[in-house]
Amino acid sequence: MVIKTLIKNLKKFASESLVTMTELVLPNDTNPLHNLMGGKMMHWMDIVSAISAQKHSNSVVVTASVDNVSFSSPIKLGNVVTLTAKVTRSFSTSMEVHIEVWAEDIPSGTKIKSNEAFFTFVAMDGNGNPKKVPELVPETEKEKNFYESAMRRRELRLVLAGRLKAQDATELRSLFKE
Amino acid sequence: MVIKTLIKNLKKFASESLVTMTELVLPNDTNPLHNLMGGKMMHWMDIVSAISAQKHSNSVVVTASVDNVSFSSPIKLGNVVTLTAKVTRSFSTSMEVHIEVWAEDIPSGTKIKSNEAFFTFVAMDGNGNPKKVPELVPETEKEKNFYESAMRRRELRLVLAGRLKAQDATELRSLFKE
Amino acid sequence: MVIKTLIKNLKKFASESLVTMTELVLPNDTNPLHNLMGGKMMHWMDIVSAISAQKHSNSVVVTASVDNVSFSSPIKLGNVVTLTAKVTRSFSTSMEVHIEVWAEDIPSGTKIKSNEAFFTFVAMDGNGNPKKVPELVPETEKEKNFYESAMRRRELRLVLAGRLKAQDATELRSLFKE
Amino acid sequence: MVIKTLIKNLKKFASESLVTMTELVLPNDTNPLHNLMGGKMMHWMDIVSAISAQKHSNSVVVTASVDNVSFSSPIKLGNVVTLTAKVTRSFSTSMEVHIEVWAEDIPSGTKIKSNEAFFTFVAMDGNGNPKKVPELVPETEKEKNFYESAMRRRELRLVLAGRLKAQDATELRSLFKE
Amino acid sequence: MVIKTLIKNLKKFASESLVTMTELVLPNDTNPLHNLMGGKMMHWMDIVSAISAQKHSNSVVVTASVDNVSFSSPIKLGNVVTLTAKVTRSFSTSMEVHIEVWAEDIPSGTKIKSNEAFFTFVAMDGNGNPKKVPELVPETEKEKNFYESAMRRRELRLVLAGRLKAQDATELRSLFKE
Amino acid sequence: MVIKTLIKNLKKFASESLVTMTELVLPNDTNPLHNLMGGKMMHWMDIVSAISAQKHSNSVVVTASVDNVSFSSPIKLGNVVTLTAKVTRSFSTSMEVHIEVWAEDIPSGTKIKSNEAFFTFVAMDGNGNPKKVPELVPETEKEKNFYESAMRRRELRLVLAGRLKAQDATELRSLFKE
Repeated sequence: MVIKTLIKNLKKFASESLVTMTELVLPNDTNPLHNLMGGKMMHWMDIVSAISAQKHSNSVVVTASVDNVSFSSPIKLGNVVTLTAKVTRSFSTSMEVHIEVWAEDIPSGTKIKSNEAFFTFVAMDGNGNPKKVPELVPETEKEKNFYESAMRRRELRLVLAGRLKAQDATELRSLFKE
Repeated sequence: MVIKTLIKNLKKFASESLVTMTELVLPNDTNPLHNLMGGKMMHWMDIVSAISAQKHSNSVVVTASVDNVSFSSPIKLGNVVTLTAKVTRSFSTSMEVHIEVWAEDIPSGTKIKSNEAFFTFVAMDGNGNPKKVPELVPETEKEKNFYESAMRRRELRLVLAGRLKAQDATELRSLFKE
Repeated sequence: MVIKTLIKNLKKFASESLVTMTELVLPNDTNPLHNLMGGKMMHWMDIVSAISAQKHSNSVVVTASVDNVSFSSPIKLGNVVTLTAKVTRSFSTSMEVHIEVWAEDIPSGTKIKSNEAFFTFVAMDGNGNPKKVPELVPETEKEKNFYESAMRRRELRLVLAGRLKAQDATELRSLFKE
Repeated sequence: MVIKTLIKNLKKFASESLVTMTELVLPNDTNPLHNLMGGKMMHWMDIVSAISAQKHSNSVVVTASVDNVSFSSPIKLGNVVTLTAKVTRSFSTSMEVHIEVWAEDIPSGTKIKSNEAFFTFVAMDGNGNPKKVPELVPETEKEKNFYESAMRRRELRLVLAGRLKAQDATELRSLFKE
Repeated sequence: MVIKTLIKNLKKFASESLVTMTELVLPNDTNPLHNLMGGKMMHWMDIVSAISAQKHSNSVVVTASVDNVSFSSPIKLGNVVTLTAKVTRSFSTSMEVHIEVWAEDIPSGTKIKSNEAFFTFVAMDGNGNPKKVPELVPETEKEKNFYESAMRRRELRLVLAGRLKAQDATELRSLFKE
Repeated sequence: MVIKTLIKNLKKFASESLVTMTELVLPNDTNPLHNLMGGKMMHWMDIVSAISAQKHSNSVVVTASVDNVSFSSPIKLGNVVTLTAKVTRSFSTSMEVHIEVWAEDIPSGTKIKSNEAFFTFVAMDGNGNPKKVPELVPETEKEKNFYESAMRRRELRLVLAGRLKAQDATELRSLFKE
């Protein structure tokens, strides 16, 4: 019994961290063109992915980094925004979370994939120090792809933060060789 | 007179787009560890840089992309956060804006550089279509460096958004060659 | 093709209206005991069920009534609240929506069913007049039970609103006979 | 002197718990039809009635239940909403509060009674345990009627919460007998 | 009938403009000492007095000026703040409103008068131009005193705004003579 | 070294307390005419000047008083509001702060000086008691003028708060003599 709990805490399935959040675009979330402001969307992405990382680690988490996000079609006042988040891979005390965002205009019946993003979080213990998190076990094809490519995104983050030399980023370099 | 105004609208100095924003970290901006949530910071970054891009383009703007942001030291409840934003370069209808964030604990007299980030915006005309923006003229050494490196960051954004092949990103490739 | 769409608009499955919303309990949502205020919970219930009713009717909706809600165990600051909403039955221009609320303390791994509630909504056309909504088709056992009992709850609402005499509430009266 | 205070704490007049609240309907409180959202109204009702229950019990209170509320005419952006709350009866550690809501369009000089509702609250001591509240003394005809009918509403709440069998609800049953 | 309505619109009693507002001090309203921030209080004062001026003038109003306000005892998190506002005098298109603020700590049973203030408003017609407002008729002793002293406060406002020379402020000058 | 720090803490330049804040006028900040509400502006003024007073005193501060503020031209939805605050003079445990407010309509390129105001604050130590603040050293002509006139404004505040007789306000009296 005790042993089983330990194993449970050592490994967790990606699907156990799935979180769905639904938001209505209200007047104060919009710019003078009545479109959702990018910063409000980032705020929602941070909350949904933080909850996902909390679920994987059973602890309080802090945002460590946000990867490139691009915004395409505008989301309008009154639209319904659905965000889903799932942990893709864990690294000792940190986790990468993938977020997908859909925007829906319900009266007209249109629903579009608006954005995708990767946020990373560090798990904290009661004293505010980083703590170990369970290993992530991907199951579906999509989860396995995200798990594999997580190393490359991690290298890019370290290079961009000036903590790894571009020349030493082995995974990334392979992309730029012909 | 008319001619001078036209020239004025064709080119603008980086310094003309400088915006400073000061925020107090309130309870609702914090997580259970009483630290500022990353998403709230992104929200403020979006507003200050959108105003900077508005100043450069004299138009309403929409967020096009957010580059990688990393969060280091936590910012506490009651801290004063100062954000400055300045356009680094313009590209036809879009602008890249550089943001710097400082966090200050005034009673203890400590002030730290918290984050840096690059956001890009597209200028919109009255009908919601992209419109041309003035060319940016860098003056200081720092402004010139940001102006130069803007091409490389733009390539990275296009590669990450799947709109440019890594092999064709000439500026980026040079980084990964020994 | 056209015919199929018409049928589609005449009847819809209960499952098509399912909406999931996740909220983090922030300081301003709590009373001096650091528990989520009942009114904030009602506010979230209204939003999640309005979106569900929008999905069923493909139109803007207005809240018509809220049935009795009881609050049991307190929900604490920092808890994650998950609300799900699904239409149970439609009546000409109105819909009844069932809402379930769970509260989760993630660090301690506890998750409790917090509340259930029924809200009703009226679908509105572009001129602000009530419009017909599709018939609801229940599939699972639970959906069928909610569909059946909806008539009794509707009678109770009409009696409580003074629009039906208690003696004429046939479904309700049967409950009070031995 | 001491004795008088004790008596004072054992019984209180309904009128001592009267609270009036005035709110302006702002953009973020409204749906896409520019009408006040039902959930926002419930939020205000909860605050005004909690303050009323606090006044009667001189303690922190938590929402125990919300009775059926129905919404009739829409309240528009810019309207002034006035809510009044008064305790109708107390039961050991809990209190029932009656709320009346008026909506006013000041420029056009129209004022309508929008809603009525009953909320119940439990008084809490410093350790978060329920504590005894003073007995309520009704004075006016209206207060006396609410005081009398409170038993019937209480039975209905217990039946709806599954804590009392419909057959045992003596007060309620009488309503359904011819 | 018509004549009576005209008269009604030419003069109004002070008591017709009375507005009461009740607010609960929430975490985001407080500074790091857990006291209500002065600016939040000013925000509430502006809303309650604007509604009072709307009632007197049956029109939309804009804030014209705020007289000196001083803050004495701190108001704590969880306190109940009650604000009342009443028009003291009208001047062609503008009105002066008097506001009184009480703070109550309900569990401990203490209630203190926290502040008083005078705000002035201009009534606007549908095109955003100032419009005539009814004359104010004071009834009680207190209302008459406020009505009389309104001229002196108006002079002080004009002097402080640089629109009247101190030497020409006849009412004010009398105060400074021995 | 130690001596220099002591002197540093005894006197500070006005320029060291300069704070700039930029805000975007959002829907919820506006009245039905789509103009910024006066109370929201006062709220921002309080925050920017409190931060300025914090900088001068290196301590938490509480608002002591707000001087007469007048509002002229309306500020519209979507405008950018810039507030700057600087301490003008210190008095034992309190400080007077001068605030200037500009409103900018960026697409049309118009920028107007909207308001000026003086707020005063008291510095608090860790136990919530007033504490001594550094002396202020004005440098520019404008800073020197504000420093000089601060005594007169202080007298006016005391007279208006009923804590000084008009006849004893020597600085003020000189204004009203021919």
